[in-house]
Amino acid sequence: VTELPRGFSAASAAAGLKPSGAPDVGLLVSDRPANAVGVFTANRVQAAPVAVSRRHLRTGRARAIVVNAGNANACTGSQGIADARATAATAARALGATEKEVLVASTGVIGRYLDMPKLRAGVETAASALGRDAEPLARAMMTTDTRPKLAMAEVGDTRIVGIIKGAGMIAPEMATMLCFVATDAAVTRGVMADALRTAAAGSFNAISVDGCMSTNDCVLLLANGAAGSEEITADHPAAAAFSQALAEVCSSLAHQVVADGEGATKVVAIRVQGASNEREAARAARTIADSVLLRCALGGADPNWGRVLAALGVSGIPFDPNVVDVWMGGEKVAERGAPGPGDLVKAALGLKERDLDIVVDMARGGASATVYTNDLTAEYVRINGEYTT
Amino acid sequence: VTELPRGFSAASAAAGLKPSGAPDVGLLVSDRPANAVGVFTANRVQAAPVAVSRRHLRTGRARAIVVNAGNANACTGSQGIADARATAATAARALGATEKEVLVASTGVIGRYLDMPKLRAGVETAASALGRDAEPLARAMMTTDTRPKLAMAEVGDTRIVGIIKGAGMIAPEMATMLCFVATDAAVTRGVMADALRTAAAGSFNAISVDGCMSTNDCVLLLANGAAGSEEITADHPAAAAFSQALAEVCSSLAHQVVADGEGATKVVAIRVQGASNEREAARAARTIADSVLLRCALGGADPNWGRVLAALGVSGIPFDPNVVDVWMGGEKVAERGAPGPGDLVKAALGLKERDLDIVVDMARGGASATVYTNDLTAEYVRINGEYTT
Repeated sequence: VTELPRGFSAASAAAGLKPSGAPDVGLLVSDRPANAVGVFTANRVQAAPVAVSRRHLRTGRARAIVVNAGNANACTGSQGIADARATAATAARALGATEKEVLVASTGVIGRYLDMPKLRAGVETAASALGRDAEPLARAMMTTDTRPKLAMAEVGDTRIVGIIKGAGMIAPEMATMLCFVATDAAVTRGVMADALRTAAAGSFNAISVDGCMSTNDCVLLLANGAAGSEEITADHPAAAAFSQALAEVCSSLAHQVVADGEGATKVVAIRVQGASNEREAARAARTIADSVLLRCALGGADPNWGRVLAALGVSGIPFDPNVVDVWMGGEKVAERGAPGPGDLVKAALGLKERDLDIVVDMARGGASATVYTNDLTAEYVRINGEYTT
Repeated sequence: VTELPRGFSAASAAAGLKPSGAPDVGLLVSDRPANAVGVFTANRVQAAPVAVSRRHLRTGRARAIVVNAGNANACTGSQGIADARATAATAARALGATEKEVLVASTGVIGRYLDMPKLRAGVETAASALGRDAEPLARAMMTTDTRPKLAMAEVGDTRIVGIIKGAGMIAPEMATMLCFVATDAAVTRGVMADALRTAAAGSFNAISVDGCMSTNDCVLLLANGAAGSEEITADHPAAAAFSQALAEVCSSLAHQVVADGEGATKVVAIRVQGASNEREAARAARTIADSVLLRCALGGADPNWGRVLAALGVSGIPFDPNVVDVWMGGEKVAERGAPGPGDLVKAALGLKERDLDIVVDMARGGASATVYTNDLTAEYVRINGEYTT
C-alpha cells in the first residue's frame, strides 16, 4: 500500500484490453482542480493521447489522468484523436469534471484502434472504485513490467507520490515510459515546470534501455494543494526543497525502470568524467550506454573495455583515444587507450554484481555525467520477438 | 576454389592466435607492385593496423596484404603500432618487398598485445605456401563468420576477386569488416579511388548489422595490371565498366556479410522512398535498420509497422507522420500513418521468408535509398555475451 497525497484517489479496472485479462485501465483523480504540467516524447511520431494531453494541459489545470495499457492508440490518425478525447470525456462525466480537465495516456500495441466500448466501461468501473492506495493504478499500467513501481517523498507537511511503468513493452509496442506524479503541495505552474524539467534531466533522460524512444512517453505532474500549506512560488523558501524531493522521486522511479528492464539482470551506471562540458559528458555516456555490443558483454559479465572505447569512438566527440582511462568492475582495465594495470579476472567478477559501474575518463576537461542502462539478454530478444498476429 | 586474378597469390597459416587452432594468418600477394587504395573505419578509435596501412598507402603501391584474426591489435598504443609495422616487415622480408609495400589488417580481441613470435612464424609459413586459390585467405580471416565469403566479376580480359569477413566478432571485438579486392586490370589510382568510394556507398555503407562501427574496418583494393590490358584512366571507355564490376563485387560481398550476420536468420532490405533527397532517404533507412526493437520483431516475423514509424520518428527528419505509408511482407500495413488495408496475417507470413522487404514512403519527395540489415536473435546475444577471461 502506498497512500496517495491528500485529495488524490486512484483505481483500476480490467477492461479486457490486455489479452491476459489483468487490470488495464487506471484512474488518478484529484478531488479539486490541480495545477498540472507535463513532459512528452520527442519522437516525431506522437500518439493520440500525447496530442490530446498536450492540448488539455494548456489550461494549466487537471482533475484526473486516465490511463490504459494493451493499446497505445498510436498511429491511429483522426480516429485515434477522437477516441482519446472520448476517453477523457467518459472519465470527466464519471467524475463531474470537464473533458479538458482530464489527461490521457496509453501504452501497448501501436497501430490498432481502441476498443472504445470496453475502454469506456473500464473507465466507469474504475471511477466507481476510487481509493487511497496508488498501487492498483501502478499495476494497471504494467505491460512487460514485472512489478509495480512507486516512489514517495515528504516535504514538510506535503507528500509527493510517483508511479511509473516501463521500460517494457507489450508486443508490438516500444519501451513506453508513463509516469504520473501527484503532490498535495500548492505549487505554481512555473515552479512545477522548472522542477520537472530538472528532475527529468537527472532521471528519465539519464537512462537508456534500448536507445528507442516511444511514441507515447509522458511524465505528468499534478499539484492540488490539498495539504493546505502555503503556495510555493519561485522565490518561496520551500521551492528548492520541493524541487529536490521531486528529483529524488523521479530518480528512484527511473532506477526502478532500468532494474525492471525487459530481460535485464543488472543495472549499469556509465559514468563519463574528464569531458569538456556536461553536454559532451552526457553524450559520451549515452553513446556508450546505447551500444548493443557492450550491453551483450555485460550480460555475460565480460570486462570488454574495447567495446567501451569503440562505442565512444562513434560519439562524434573529437577526443584523443590515447589519453582515455576505463574502469570496469572496479579495475582500471584501460589506461591511456591501451591495456591498463587492472586485473581482468577481478573485473569479470565485479561485473557479476547486480549493480555495476563503468567509469570512463576522457582527460579533456572537468565535466562528468552518468547514464544508467542494463544488460541485453536473450530474454529481451525473446520478449520482443514474440507476437501473435 | 576461387582463382585469384593473374599475378596474385594467397595463403593461410595457423599461427595459434585463434584459441580453436584454425588458420588465423593470411597473405594476399601480387607478383609486382600494384596500385592500391583503401577506405577505413570512421571510428575515432582506430586500430594500429589501420594507422599503419593508411600510412603505407600514401606510396600508392602495395605488394601484399597480411591479415590476422584472433587479435585486433586495437587500443594497444605505441606497442601496437610497432607490432603492426613488424608484421609488415616480416611479410616484406619473406616476399622480397619493402615494409611500406605491405598493408596490414587485424580482427579479434581489442586491447591485447599481439603474440609477435607466433604471428611472425605464421606470416613466414604462409609466405612459403602461396597458391592461386583465394579461399584459404578468406577462411583465415573468419571470426564468428560461419563461411568464407568471396565474389568475382570479369571485365573484358580482366578479373576482380573480392573476399570479406564480418559482420561477426570474436569476443570482445566489434563487428569488424575486412575486405580485400584484387584485380589484374591496370587502373589509375584516381579511377580506383572513385570507383571504390562509389562501390562502398552502395554496399558496405548500405548495410547495418548492429549499428556498431569497428575500430578495424577496412576495404583495400589492389590493381596489378597483370592481365596486360590498357591502363584504365578516368576518360578511358572501360572506366565505367570497371566501376560497375567493382560495385557488383562489393555489393555481393556486403550481402553475404548481412546474410552471415551473427545469429541472423534473414536479410531485410529497408527501402525508403518519397524522401526529399538521397541523403535523407539513406538516413531514414539507416535509422529504421538500427532499431533493436524492429530487428527483434523481424526475428519473430512480426509485422510490427509501429516500430518502423517510431524508429523513423527519431531520425531527426521533419516528416509528417500522417502521410507515411509502410509495406511489410508485401502488404500495405500502414497508410497515411494509420492502419492500412494490408492483411497482417499475410504480412506475418511474408516476414517468415529468408529475404524480406520493408518499404516506407515518406511522401515528401522523389528520392529513395535502401539499407540492408538482418534480424536480431537470441543467438546474437549468446555469441556476444560469451567470453572467457
